[in-house]
Amino acid sequence: MNNTSGHFITFEGGDGGGKTTQAAELVGYLRGKGFEVLETLEPGGTQQGEDLRDLLVRGNPERWSPLAELLMMTAARVEHVNRVIRPALAAGKWVICDRFIDSTLVYQGIAGGVDLSFIKQLQELACADSSPPIMPDLTFVLDVRAEKGLERATIRGGAARFEKKGTGFHQKVRDGFLALANESPTRMVVIDAEETFAKVWAQIESAMARHFNL
Amino acid sequence: MNNTSGHFITFEGGDGGGKTTQAAELVGYLRGKGFEVLETLEPGGTQQGEDLRDLLVRGNPERWSPLAELLMMTAARVEHVNRVIRPALAAGKWVICDRFIDSTLVYQGIAGGVDLSFIKQLQELACADSSPPIMPDLTFVLDVRAEKGLERATIRGGAARFEKKGTGFHQKVRDGFLALANESPTRMVVIDAEETFAKVWAQIESAMARHFNL
Repeated sequence: MNNTSGHFITFEGGDGGGKTTQAAELVGYLRGKGFEVLETLEPGGTQQGEDLRDLLVRGNPERWSPLAELLMMTAARVEHVNRVIRPALAAGKWVICDRFIDSTLVYQGIAGGVDLSFIKQLQELACADSSPPIMPDLTFVLDVRAEKGLERATIRGGAARFEKKGTGFHQKVRDGFLALANESPTRMVVIDAEETFAKVWAQIESAMARHFNL
Repeated sequence: MNNTSGHFITFEGGDGGGKTTQAAELVGYLRGKGFEVLETLEPGGTQQGEDLRDLLVRGNPERWSPLAELLMMTAARVEHVNRVIRPALAAGKWVICDRFIDSTLVYQGIAGGVDLSFIKQLQELACADSSPPIMPDLTFVLDVRAEKGLERATIRGGAARFEKKGTGFHQKVRDGFLALANESPTRMVVIDAEETFAKVWAQIESAMARHFNL
């Protein structure tokens, strides 16, 4: 590869949209083309982030207020950006990340009720603790109806605390991601994730080709 | 007691100043006068805060950046204020808290290098997530020379990660608390904590009498 600075791609959307599976497919696709790829996720991506993730995804929905969630998610992001994402991009790698800043805006802001302008300010600080600021080049929003996503997520198991927040919350999450995508149509590509795996992947592959001339 | 709204007192200062011991003495003193008292601490004071404290006080000094520390300390504070401190004050109790907002300003701001105006803004948000904002009525800064405090703290054991940050850091911590006290002379009372336990307590008892007509 001849990138001196890498590319940063995120997967976003509610639970049960197949983010993890499609991100893994993209990682394989890029590695198949000979690129160096870092596959990571949030909250997590460092030992510090995993420790915070453990606190965030377990227990009752009421365990943490949305404001506390926001602060913990952002703490994990500070370490993730500075210790993992920034060095990988500086080394010219592709970074594929399962959830990032848009999840914070949606889960803690649009669905959680924390002031959006405050969240944005906090994210800028987290992503620019040392310069330059880190933002995704391209974001795939894997869109499924809330009830369908929850159904899939429940079968799979996983981040149980957020899944227990109920259908109304997850409807706000879905609407929130669509609203963000509407505001940033260049960076954010909405993918119909109720299709088969192959059809979803075809949409992602096609968008990758358009954006990066792959 | 005939308070319909309680009083909030914090103990601050570097490690090894005897905050915990003097706070316990104050709790006994107030209970001896028939008041209802809540004795608490930060980071901690709720199960959520204790979980975050475990992450914050262990490991190497480099485990968390000051910005991540700030966000985690503030997440713990959000839960502490809303679930414990605010209800206790509303019930007319005295709340005696070992470390609070000033520790964040000093450890993560003055000594840690995070922008102070940003920290203040974040603390306002944490302490006023629901109104009215919570601020201590009176704060005792237990002042010891950095090397003396570290010597005492090392003998005692405890919050090892912060103690390992070195003498230069702890000198900034001491200077930071003195600077804050200088800015807020009505709320913050500096106590010479290198004296004997009895002489330190006498200074606290005397300040309590002055402030609250006890």
